[in-house]
Amino acid sequence: MEKLVLIGIGTGNPDHLTLQAIKAMRGADLILIPQKGPDKSDLAGLRHAMLAEHAADVPVAVFDMPKRDVSGGYLAGVDAWHDAIAAAWVAAIATVQDGRGFSRDIRTVALLVWGDPSLYDSTLRIASRLKPAPVVTVVPGVTSMQVLTAGHAIPVNEVGAPFTVTTGRQLRDHGWPAGVDTLVVMLDGECSFGSVQPAGVHIWWGAYVGMAEQVLAEGPLAEMATTIPPLRERLRAEHGWIMDIYVLRRKG
Amino acid sequence: MEKLVLIGIGTGNPDHLTLQAIKAMRGADLILIPQKGPDKSDLAGLRHAMLAEHAADVPVAVFDMPKRDVSGGYLAGVDAWHDAIAAAWVAAIATVQDGRGFSRDIRTVALLVWGDPSLYDSTLRIASRLKPAPVVTVVPGVTSMQVLTAGHAIPVNEVGAPFTVTTGRQLRDHGWPAGVDTLVVMLDGECSFGSVQPAGVHIWWGAYVGMAEQVLAEGPLAEMATTIPPLRERLRAEHGWIMDIYVLRRKG
Ligand SMILES: C[S@@+](CC[C@H](N)C(=O)[O-])C[C@H]1O[C@@H](n2cnc3c(N)ncnc32)[C@H](O)[C@@H]1O
Ligand SMILES: C[S@@+](CC[C@H](N)C(=O)[O-])C[C@H]1O[C@@H](n2cnc3c(N)ncnc32)[C@H](O)[C@@H]1O
Repeated sequence: MEKLVLIGIGTGNPDHLTLQAIKAMRGADLILIPQKGPDKSDLAGLRHAMLAEHAADVPVAVFDMPKRDVSGGYLAGVDAWHDAIAAAWVAAIATVQDGRGFSRDIRTVALLVWGDPSLYDSTLRIASRLKPAPVVTVVPGVTSMQVLTAGHAIPVNEVGAPFTVTTGRQLRDHGWPAGVDTLVVMLDGECSFGSVQPAGVHIWWGAYVGMAEQVLAEGPLAEMATTIPPLRERLRAEHGWIMDIYVLRRKG
Repeated sequence: MEKLVLIGIGTGNPDHLTLQAIKAMRGADLILIPQKGPDKSDLAGLRHAMLAEHAADVPVAVFDMPKRDVSGGYLAGVDAWHDAIAAAWVAAIATVQDGRGFSRDIRTVALLVWGDPSLYDSTLRIASRLKPAPVVTVVPGVTSMQVLTAGHAIPVNEVGAPFTVTTGRQLRDHGWPAGVDTLVVMLDGECSFGSVQPAGVHIWWGAYVGMAEQVLAEGPLAEMATTIPPLRERLRAEHGWIMDIYVLRRKG
């Protein structure tokens, strides 16, 4: 592998693909697709469908996502996990390259990354562990943040004002950050908006944004802090998994 | 006009278009394109080229961007300017609708928005002035922020950490915000990174990101704070305009 291309694919709507992403898929010698397990949350089906539609001639190798084990400490566990994922890529490529009847040289390998590869995604970090190091290029894709704001037809920032993108854990542990009136909260399994003083705060929330399952809700946090958690539980039970994201804005 | 569609088109690479954006262009009865003036910074040429390629059958109306006059106060000036832009849209639509030989009803009007309509863009605010109010929908597009990080092949956030997106003016007036080690700075005509204490700070900078003119630079701010400003001046002189954006990261 001389080149590794990380292709942002958007957040579940096949039409989120850019023309650049489609060209990058077609230009690859091999595309790697992770399988996380038996549930649907790995969304491998979507990736296969995109490839069948846009790059049916490009060989695909599926690899099993290694399990993360943080029993020996969080950072060390993540570190070992990233190493294991990089090794799983290399093994999947070798299996294909050595396979009978595979005639093409595997120079350019592509991975389809959820949303955009820059945003709360570890693929770039995993890629940096490969030895020898391939040239890594990135094709940007629309993020869940933008698909959320598009769904609500709102700007993310107020005029000329800053905003902070953060995680549920950060919001719970450190409260509302100083100096900004708008937050985008991702990676929140625990409805951490519940830890925010609701007076004067508005929430724009979305689950499965961009997908057929999309559900949006918005309103004063004082109300929504009680209605979103049961809705989220119901959706999670119904689909077996959930991904959600929200914007919080307080009066400046 | 019953429906107004704001279509994010990315930051200058025609391949930034998503399939959803192309479908939205094709689904419009009329597409409005602004002309700012005689320089090239309105990038009207790119918009016309995209339409010629992907939606050649859809009628286009060009409108002149009104001039902004903030001599009577900034906020009032912007307010009046947004009203004037909304009026220019309505006038352009009326001219086409009333024109001889225009047989199609104009129900769905589309605007091609630079990057993503959520990010430091006034189109949604202008649209909210229309009376009667059309249904406004948004098609997300890749932002300059993502095209910058893709160009440098870097994540925007550190693992699990927040980041703040802000403007050059905010950085100059309020300094580095508390509680974040990563900033994305946009709308900066004055190399405001020069106001930051450079020790331990790295900058990833880009001009014309995604375009043929793209120039990237990165390094310790201590060095780059002296090399980027003359480079930026040279590029601006050469092209007649410039748009730049950067990520600043300090050791946490
Ligand atoms: C590991 S991060 C990946 C983000 C991705 N790289 C992006 O650009 O959107 C996963 C988090 O993104 C958000 N997310 C991603 N896709 C989403 C979707 N379709 N609907 C709602 N939230 C989503 C959720 O907050 C989720 O916890
Ligand atoms: C009015 S804002 C529009 C941002 C746009 N909506 C987006 O999603 O990127 C303009 C600012 O975006 C950044 N920008 C937009 N396009 C750019 C490009 N091609 N190269 C560098 N910066 C760009 C610059 O910081 C510029 O001052």
